[in-house]
Amino acid sequence: MKKVAVLLSGSGVYDGTELHESVLALLEIKKAGANYQCFAPNIPQLHVVNHLTGEVQEHESRNVLVESARIARGEIKPVDELNIAEFDALIIPGGFGAAKNLCNFAIAGAEHEVEPSVKYFISQFAESHKPVGFICISPIMIPQLYGQGVSGTIGSDAGTAAAFDQQGGKHQAVSVHEIVVDEQHKVVSTPAYMLASDIVEAHSGISKLVEKVLQMA
Amino acid sequence: MKKVAVLLSGSGVYDGTELHESVLALLEIKKAGANYQCFAPNIPQLHVVNHLTGEVQEHESRNVLVESARIARGEIKPVDELNIAEFDALIIPGGFGAAKNLCNFAIAGAEHEVEPSVKYFISQFAESHKPVGFICISPIMIPQLYGQGVSGTIGSDAGTAAAFDQQGGKHQAVSVHEIVVDEQHKVVSTPAYMLASDIVEAHSGISKLVEKVLQMA
Repeated sequence: MKKVAVLLSGSGVYDGTELHESVLALLEIKKAGANYQCFAPNIPQLHVVNHLTGEVQEHESRNVLVESARIARGEIKPVDELNIAEFDALIIPGGFGAAKNLCNFAIAGAEHEVEPSVKYFISQFAESHKPVGFICISPIMIPQLYGQGVSGTIGSDAGTAAAFDQQGGKHQAVSVHEIVVDEQHKVVSTPAYMLASDIVEAHSGISKLVEKVLQMA
Repeated sequence: MKKVAVLLSGSGVYDGTELHESVLALLEIKKAGANYQCFAPNIPQLHVVNHLTGEVQEHESRNVLVESARIARGEIKPVDELNIAEFDALIIPGGFGAAKNLCNFAIAGAEHEVEPSVKYFISQFAESHKPVGFICISPIMIPQLYGQGVSGTIGSDAGTAAAFDQQGGKHQAVSVHEIVVDEQHKVVSTPAYMLASDIVEAHSGISKLVEKVLQMA
């Protein structure tokens, strides 16, 4: 049975993992007969956003691993407990947590850097040539992790696509129903809520991404 | 196009709405061609649970409506803003939030009471004979809302089933793949994570529940 690591970044679209994307990824992994193990970095969130008002809750602090555990129903490990030999693939859902906690794209734009423990975690999959699926905004990390010429998609936003290319990637604009596959690097990506107008559209691309990642594993 | 209200109780299985159950319910509603609007009571959570350790975070307080907004991507209303004429049905996912915030079953057992704003919200669907779907532990509220002889399921846990019957209901033990339908009261229920060993099993009963609720609407 194939085993997939799922990297989370908190719990909630505006300061953590997008909940629909992560739950749908878990569903598709299990439906395909594979197993998953959730991981997250044990670091503070960049900030906490009140999802009702959209405002940053200035005096509140939450931990990425602790909040991600909500999605994993408690079954989650810190990224530094990865034993790469146990896993066949990795999937990274989106949400602002990917751009605020896994890297600092939300504040640094094209000059962003992947958080060190996250970079080491993902690089173990890249170096052992195991496939990685990036959903929504999380593909913004692809060029920094895989180097010059790697292909991926973050949908069709011009500024975000330009940042992807500025870091050395080759951005492909695709629809919400499509995936971009870089066969050489074993990297798959899909826009999901970068473009989706509802949960069914997000599900469409995520289903294809999970299927392709498992096929490459 | 049918419109379904979805009643949330926070965000995370141990102190709020079960995330898999709620996201899968939203997916199935949209896949069936219906629309949804999320609601939650504007009240403090009973408590905040660290989902990594399982411990109550004694000095922290969170609001049910604000945390539920994470599942709804910000598109949520307080229960007192319901205009019942706009809706055809209601679905209530589970998680401990249903037993801690929507009612106090988690601390009062068979003597529990439904939270007043929640009771008024659900009773508007009951009184206008619009179907309501209860998932996981949320069916524990059914007897108090519908009165003597109403049928429902919370899976097969003997103590919880006894509490259901003690409040006047007729509990039916069913598998995770089944739903219980009370045609007279237009009430549908399914065990989901009261019995499910994984997300695919939870999805099985939830899919059938959403289909049946929309059919009755």
